[in-house]
Amino acid sequence: MTFRDDAAAAAEWVAAYLEGARELPVLAQVEPGDVRRTLPAGPPDEPEPFSAVLDDLDRVLLPGITHWNHPRFFAYFATSGSEPGILAEFLTAALNVNAMLWRTSPAATELEELALDWLAQLLGLPTGWHGHIEDTASTSTLVALAAARAQVPGGAILCSEQAHSSVEKAGRLLGLETIKVAVDSDFRLRPEALADAMGDRRVAAVVATVGTTSSTAVDPVPAVAEVVDGSGAWLHVDAAYAGSAAVCEELRWALAGVEHADSLVVNPHKWLFTPMDCSCLYTRRPDAVRAAFSLVPEYLRTSEDEVTNLMDYGTALGRRFRALKVWAVLRCYGRSGLQTLIREHVRLAHLFASWLEAEPGWEVVAPHPFSVVCFRREGSDEENERLLERVNATGEVFLSHTQLGGRYVLRLAVGNVRTTEEDVRRGWDALRREAG
Amino acid sequence: MTFRDDAAAAAEWVAAYLEGARELPVLAQVEPGDVRRTLPAGPPDEPEPFSAVLDDLDRVLLPGITHWNHPRFFAYFATSGSEPGILAEFLTAALNVNAMLWRTSPAATELEELALDWLAQLLGLPTGWHGHIEDTASTSTLVALAAARAQVPGGAILCSEQAHSSVEKAGRLLGLETIKVAVDSDFRLRPEALADAMGDRRVAAVVATVGTTSSTAVDPVPAVAEVVDGSGAWLHVDAAYAGSAAVCEELRWALAGVEHADSLVVNPHKWLFTPMDCSCLYTRRPDAVRAAFSLVPEYLRTSEDEVTNLMDYGTALGRRFRALKVWAVLRCYGRSGLQTLIREHVRLAHLFASWLEAEPGWEVVAPHPFSVVCFRREGSDEENERLLERVNATGEVFLSHTQLGGRYVLRLAVGNVRTTEEDVRRGWDALRREAG
Repeated sequence: MTFRDDAAAAAEWVAAYLEGARELPVLAQVEPGDVRRTLPAGPPDEPEPFSAVLDDLDRVLLPGITHWNHPRFFAYFATSGSEPGILAEFLTAALNVNAMLWRTSPAATELEELALDWLAQLLGLPTGWHGHIEDTASTSTLVALAAARAQVPGGAILCSEQAHSSVEKAGRLLGLETIKVAVDSDFRLRPEALADAMGDRRVAAVVATVGTTSSTAVDPVPAVAEVVDGSGAWLHVDAAYAGSAAVCEELRWALAGVEHADSLVVNPHKWLFTPMDCSCLYTRRPDAVRAAFSLVPEYLRTSEDEVTNLMDYGTALGRRFRALKVWAVLRCYGRSGLQTLIREHVRLAHLFASWLEAEPGWEVVAPHPFSVVCFRREGSDEENERLLERVNATGEVFLSHTQLGGRYVLRLAVGNVRTTEEDVRRGWDALRREAG
Repeated sequence: MTFRDDAAAAAEWVAAYLEGARELPVLAQVEPGDVRRTLPAGPPDEPEPFSAVLDDLDRVLLPGITHWNHPRFFAYFATSGSEPGILAEFLTAALNVNAMLWRTSPAATELEELALDWLAQLLGLPTGWHGHIEDTASTSTLVALAAARAQVPGGAILCSEQAHSSVEKAGRLLGLETIKVAVDSDFRLRPEALADAMGDRRVAAVVATVGTTSSTAVDPVPAVAEVVDGSGAWLHVDAAYAGSAAVCEELRWALAGVEHADSLVVNPHKWLFTPMDCSCLYTRRPDAVRAAFSLVPEYLRTSEDEVTNLMDYGTALGRRFRALKVWAVLRCYGRSGLQTLIREHVRLAHLFASWLEAEPGWEVVAPHPFSVVCFRREGSDEENERLLERVNATGEVFLSHTQLGGRYVLRLAVGNVRTTEEDVRRGWDALRREAG
């Protein structure tokens, strides 16, 4: 077999997978250890053909895969490995460049800055911010908070009690206390509670969330910014999921006030149809980020003075050429294609919520401004938890849960490029059947 | 165009690229801004075909790419996007799973643990260690040092003055002082200097390097371990580059003493023919790593008690299915194929060193136990720097530099799967020609 044969087989595998994913159980139906014990305990001494890898992918791995790229994956935030994104990753692996320095691949650095500028335009972000790519929002937030700490050493980090766990995780790594501020009845940070918590405290950073992980609540960023203003604290906006919604003008209200932020994260690998991993960190204070991270040993010194070396903006030295997939997705969907998908996902979530509201025994438990609906069935937390387990065990759909207002709550998240109304209806049917 | 057409075009592009990379200039021959100004300043409103992306890849991006996957890329550490690794990344992007929890893709978690166990066997690492994948050695080292800090809060980090800059960068992030210990004439950490530096100091971690970035020196890990023993400090071994050499029995001396380490990092994306990014962090104290990082919010709680959730072992929550490429590479090369490549790279580096030693006016300035040779031409640092710039400007080869013993030094690193003796000879010819 030549590489061309292997590549053709891989391409056919991918094409067939994308076409056929809908027929697979969404949540892996295996027991712990099933996959591992089916495979040899040690590596082969002699080379095997790539076709053997493909065979085992079908035979052994696929039953143990939870299919994130399935149109009925409704858990966490639903994501997409879209066609242009997948093909771009293929090209990226072949180029295998490391965008740590400008000179180690000028096109990778310049395309990263350009693609993030394009994205900023699509989302209506303030002009002039610097954007670069990290692996995940956990890392982007860590980078932002490290820059914040450099401004106010030892200061606390304040966020709402609905903020993502990565804020507290970053705080722990940075040795900063994380203080959680109360939310209102719609799970949004309360500015007065923030003001109280800040008091005379030394505050390094305030994190506002646009689209919380549990319920996609939008913290009132303008009011938060007013509280933060003049305090010297860094304002970081976590729009990892909902930031992408701003590609639609009618949803751009969600980013109101971000012009006052020092940094903002939005993840194209969440709701912008880009394969894992891709988190975009924007900042209007790139010098502060660079000052927190830059450390140039002799073996990385180059003669170019006027260029951006992206290794200076984060924790990892090695940097994949992730810009290629962002750029491919933005081009192959275009503004209109992205808007169509986002609007359809929001429509499907609203439709699902309307079904819940129309049927006795079901309750929508939080506002659903985007593509995620939080709901529950009448009965106890345990009954709802068991309902979720039964529904997921069918393999027809995969939903996840959270806790809101002290209650166990189910979540249905729409976000995959291939999800249709029929897919959402099958989720609803499965819920009603298993509840009945 | 259907996806199958686009995928076939991408596959042909990759095949032709791998075949033809040798003919391209290794170091991008563009000026800052050249790439960016050739592309539209804003995103398209309407969708474009994927073929347009491929066209611009050839027309605009390729001249601005520094070709890390080129057989005459001899800078930093030479790496490979090998065929099985590239195809595995293609499949990974299509599956687009997030291996944050066992249940979010059991096969991804179990294959990650299995592939790292296979790799541990290939390298002769101690049995029973837990391995998982991070993006880069910078992150792996950060994770190890965060675990160390949890054991000895506020303690210092000690490493040799030749240790990678990521150690100091992690120390800065963790708020720990990094103290650099003197090396011997072969650029290896001096155990007596380490003992002196430790003194009565509170020490969180000692980092020993197996294959330093500048000269691939191997710190005497057994003697370092003896100094560390009983102090309560965490011993981390940075074998990011040279760890892969241990696939060959005759090079396994380099890992002597690592059985005393608390953690060890080796990067398959450096010298094990795996595309960026892939850094393997092994630890015999997984509980300590988990204790430093685990933080489980309600929305990530699952009912499985007995499983490993790899999000608990590092900073990022989202985790790509990187195990697939490691597994594909280990299978498609096999132990014998990996040994053949590593041995050939070591042979080529030794051959290059022998040419330098046989010719007046050139000097090998450090031992070269692996596939990297540090050398210089007679004359001043400035003359050597200009020589390097002239050689790199030819596009025939790309070498990088470092500083050793206060002098500017050139480095030739062999490590790409397609590098032949003829490629190394072209490098030598270019050096002699430009020096003459």
